[in-house]
Amino acid sequence: MADVTDLPDRLEPSLAARLKRTADGLVAAIVQDHDTGEVLMLGWMDDEALRRTIAEGRVTYWSRSRQEYWRKGDTSGHTQHLRTLALDCDGDALLLTVDQVGAACHTGTRTCFSDVLVGDEADR
Amino acid sequence: MADVTDLPDRLEPSLAARLKRTADGLVAAIVQDHDTGEVLMLGWMDDEALRRTIAEGRVTYWSRSRQEYWRKGDTSGHTQHLRTLALDCDGDALLLTVDQVGAACHTGTRTCFSDVLVGDEADR
Repeated sequence: MADVTDLPDRLEPSLAARLKRTADGLVAAIVQDHDTGEVLMLGWMDDEALRRTIAEGRVTYWSRSRQEYWRKGDTSGHTQHLRTLALDCDGDALLLTVDQVGAACHTGTRTCFSDVLVGDEADR
Repeated sequence: MADVTDLPDRLEPSLAARLKRTADGLVAAIVQDHDTGEVLMLGWMDDEALRRTIAEGRVTYWSRSRQEYWRKGDTSGHTQHLRTLALDCDGDALLLTVDQVGAACHTGTRTCFSDVLVGDEADR
């Protein structure tokens, strides 16, 4: 895909118009491993994070704790490469399928959902 | 499972202590079909919705638009039966796998993510 600097610096208006954001301007982004179907993590995107993700094909989030953009893997090497992106029926959630390099979770586990509270891990 | 009225009316305190809620007291709940791995929808839960979900084995959300509890399927018949529940590493998202009866989406489609913006539906 083209370098982000070559692309318009606004999210496509017809897409932007469909997003229903939280009070702090964010949409939830569910990230699923393209090949295995595992749900890897949930992140948050504002319009600019979504624009960068689509433009670059590398997943970028808005970090609520650090209040900054966060392109997954820039520090860890555990990059996420976008395969598909879907918007839900009411515009407040995105579903991304990705090719995940290494662990998705900053704790080093493959997914962020390794703490199973109900049911059996083996049953997932 | 036991009827919810037979069970304690507070979410288990050690679990409640681990949740990181939005300003309006909610945690995102990703719902995945247990058998196919499809991500069906994203809902929101407060502590009471999570307590009911665990106690009854039927998925209950907090509806942000209607400001009320919403046990999936009570109107539509499209119930969700809990199989597994996991909490993510930072406590702000839940991943539920369910047995989904009928369409998960109120629009009648199997999942809420049928609007593919990037990539090919067939490639998901």
